[in-house]
Amino acid sequence: MNNERYERGVQKFKEIKGEKGEEAIARLKELDPDLARYVIEFPFGDVYSRPGLDLRSREIATIAALIALGNAVLQLKVHIRSALNVGVSRREIIEIIIQMAVYAGFPAALNAIRAAKEVFEEVDREQKEKGTKNPEPKRLVPRLVKVNEKSRIRQNKNRRHRRVL
Amino acid sequence: MNNERYERGVQKFKEIKGEKGEEAIARLKELDPDLARYVIEFPFGDVYSRPGLDLRSREIATIAALIALGNAVLQLKVHIRSALNVGVSRREIIEIIIQMAVYAGFPAALNAIRAAKEVFEEVDREQKEKGTKNPEPKRLVPRLVKVNEKSRIRQNKNRRHRRVL
Amino acid sequence: MNNERYERGVQKFKEIKGEKGEEAIARLKELDPDLARYVIEFPFGDVYSRPGLDLRSREIATIAALIALGNAVLQLKVHIRSALNVGVSRREIIEIIIQMAVYAGFPAALNAIRAAKEVFEEVDREQKEKGTKNPEPKRLVPRLVKVNEKSRIRQNKNRRHRRVL
Amino acid sequence: MNNERYERGVQKFKEIKGEKGEEAIARLKELDPDLARYVIEFPFGDVYSRPGLDLRSREIATIAALIALGNAVLQLKVHIRSALNVGVSRREIIEIIIQMAVYAGFPAALNAIRAAKEVFEEVDREQKEKGTKNPEPKRLVPRLVKVNEKSRIRQNKNRRHRRVL
Amino acid sequence: MNNERYERGVQKFKEIKGEKGEEAIARLKELDPDLARYVIEFPFGDVYSRPGLDLRSREIATIAALIALGNAVLQLKVHIRSALNVGVSRREIIEIIIQMAVYAGFPAALNAIRAAKEVFEEVDREQKEKGTKNPEPKRLVPRLVKVNEKSRIRQNKNRRHRRVL
Amino acid sequence: MNNERYERGVQKFKEIKGEKGEEAIARLKELDPDLARYVIEFPFGDVYSRPGLDLRSREIATIAALIALGNAVLQLKVHIRSALNVGVSRREIIEIIIQMAVYAGFPAALNAIRAAKEVFEEVDREQKEKGTKNPEPKRLVPRLVKVNEKSRIRQNKNRRHRRVL
Repeated sequence: MNNERYERGVQKFKEIKGEKGEEAIARLKELDPDLARYVIEFPFGDVYSRPGLDLRSREIATIAALIALGNAVLQLKVHIRSALNVGVSRREIIEIIIQMAVYAGFPAALNAIRAAKEVFEEVDREQKEKGTKNPEPKRLVPRLVKVNEKSRIRQNKNRRHRRVL
Repeated sequence: MNNERYERGVQKFKEIKGEKGEEAIARLKELDPDLARYVIEFPFGDVYSRPGLDLRSREIATIAALIALGNAVLQLKVHIRSALNVGVSRREIIEIIIQMAVYAGFPAALNAIRAAKEVFEEVDREQKEKGTKNPEPKRLVPRLVKVNEKSRIRQNKNRRHRRVL
Repeated sequence: MNNERYERGVQKFKEIKGEKGEEAIARLKELDPDLARYVIEFPFGDVYSRPGLDLRSREIATIAALIALGNAVLQLKVHIRSALNVGVSRREIIEIIIQMAVYAGFPAALNAIRAAKEVFEEVDREQKEKGTKNPEPKRLVPRLVKVNEKSRIRQNKNRRHRRVL
Repeated sequence: MNNERYERGVQKFKEIKGEKGEEAIARLKELDPDLARYVIEFPFGDVYSRPGLDLRSREIATIAALIALGNAVLQLKVHIRSALNVGVSRREIIEIIIQMAVYAGFPAALNAIRAAKEVFEEVDREQKEKGTKNPEPKRLVPRLVKVNEKSRIRQNKNRRHRRVL
Repeated sequence: MNNERYERGVQKFKEIKGEKGEEAIARLKELDPDLARYVIEFPFGDVYSRPGLDLRSREIATIAALIALGNAVLQLKVHIRSALNVGVSRREIIEIIIQMAVYAGFPAALNAIRAAKEVFEEVDREQKEKGTKNPEPKRLVPRLVKVNEKSRIRQNKNRRHRRVL
Repeated sequence: MNNERYERGVQKFKEIKGEKGEEAIARLKELDPDLARYVIEFPFGDVYSRPGLDLRSREIATIAALIALGNAVLQLKVHIRSALNVGVSRREIIEIIIQMAVYAGFPAALNAIRAAKEVFEEVDREQKEKGTKNPEPKRLVPRLVKVNEKSRIRQNKNRRHRRVL
């Protein structure tokens, strides 16, 4: 039963997580098969599959929430990767984190920026290892970027705070 | 001193809060003049004024964080209004709230949806009172998400943080 | 679609909430039809319907969690009622609350005991209004714990989620 | 002074923690003698020693609260062990964790299930090392299970979700 | 039993709460006699009675913690009163609250300052009602901090709780 | 721009952090230059530089808040060091932690005491390494202790709970 939700969940999960999706599902299942099934079915098969909000906005919301909760560093790192996958830039992730200093306090923001830096370095390492397969490693963002994102990316080019990316 | 940051903060605050901005600043000052100054200077003069992330994404992040924190209903309601002001639709706000059931639990989501409903009703009342100035207030929150999404995307093209309501 | 989970959820919801269940579902739907559906389907259709843990233990866990979260007084009150419905005694609810002073601090415990007292008084009022149908409502919450424990253990034998009140 | 509470606390502590109790008290004392004394006296000498709620229900409440608090992994692991000691089965612990996805969110549940798995593996390792001393290592649960627990254990035999245990 | 701790707790409680202490204990007892006893015995009979930290510092710590916890407005208000009673000035309370914007976020600080203002107004009202006994209640909260600090130190000289400063 | 606030922030930061200040600022900048600037400007240039509350009380408030937040062990350790630097004694830090058991629960207090012990051991190690340069390593506290602190220190000499320091 519920095959439809599970299948839709797996698809959405992979769309968001990218090439790491398959492996992540396997790890979840090993942890607990029932909870793994619920993770796929409810958050991904139900919620993230809803048409009312684009994936980019969804990952922005999730990153903000995980920083505010403050006790889910592992999940925060996973979702920073997801955010990069669905078209949130590194600079934008840093902006969300800085903004969280306002709502969740500076310690939460500082812990989050440490987590983000670690993810960025991991991604850089992976890019490097793959070498020639990815000829332009710096164009990390795309994949699912929709039409209206293009103008945003263009916009980003001539902004000031470029140090990080 | 710090005049520049304060001025920029007031401007950004009003851009986000819309016509209620002036009154909100007055209320903050009455609460405590120093804390009010910091609220204007740091979150609005510094953070929200940074170019690296659009106001729409910023309000999505803030709403998600306030739901996750769970103890700031008043601020959540204020920011639901701000989100409407900077181009987040009612449907999208509902989507963020539903998504928060995944990360912060169902009680947090249920409390947030109650808050959102109250804000939407307040806004409707205000629209009605203003009467003929806004001839089609109901068109802004279409039921059918797919149709709505289209218009949002179109809308996004020519907004520079366009007031939705 | 998902009819099976929804139906099972409604049934489990009513089993736990007792006679107030129908009304509660209506209120949820009015708040937001989609979130209401998820509340019925996932927590009740999926989780509470799992055979691995009895409803009494489930409500004990939920009450403890809601006290620890500290920002869900409304849901806490709802689940104190549910706990009474599935066979947790008033004394046991008080015990859980007192225990939470250890893990979530005294303020959380004091707020919870206030909520519990309000629920107990509401239930008493309702009992009174129904009159002769429940001739000895007061006998259910004896002061002397030791005696009370005995009756609970006896009571547990022939309950199949027996309504305590 | 307060000798009585301390003695009662030590006894209750050991009843709950099992053979690891002695060592745990020593570690607490080394951390800080005064806080150690309060830990023994108030939570164990006062609260857990109260007759109004059985130890099994108390540990269910504590596990749920620690998952909801989300920042006490170490204590969660300690109490998962305690729960096993006082008659909560591994399957039941997994059920509580899955249920917490509803109230505290999926990240909290996923972190908790990771902690539980680690405890289960530790316990298995210890069982193995003791070898012949414990001829039936799989019957982990009992020890302090009281009379009314028996029927529950019987009940558990023919339930469906047995994969984990 | 435990008479000594309870008596010491009552005394410390009244020392901290001032003239409202008696009434507060009665209200606690009415809520739940057992939890009330623990509140008197452990926080006040044990912790606040320890000689290692002055009451002024203890109330500063408690106010900060309650703001950070964010879900205990009632207790925060009670402890703002206690802080005033043991020699923390209104200005200092405001300072702690502003500082909490850094660690717990601006919403927590804004909610706390609202609570503080309410307490200050209540205290002013009570002062007024008592009339001539306190001839210059307004002098306590001067606007200019530097001047204020001076008067606080002077003020501290002839108040009761002098051990501390 | 904002030079004045930044300079004041650096100075206050070093006053609080002591000899480790320089290094800490460098690490912050490496993490993210913008967030580092805000950390220096707002918490230290604005808040900690305000005259209305002494640094000793400020660090007491911060330690209490960080224990209550529960998800900022790193920052807690940093501020335990800061507290020692501005005249809070080890015994007083332990007292704040024990007091937090009342408000944030025993797990939060136990985690905090573990963190404090680690800091104390680090400081001892550092003292030892510096050897003859610091002839009286046990007189850790002073540095910025103001006049009115002297009486407190004197007072501390003949109190009972001296085990820890």
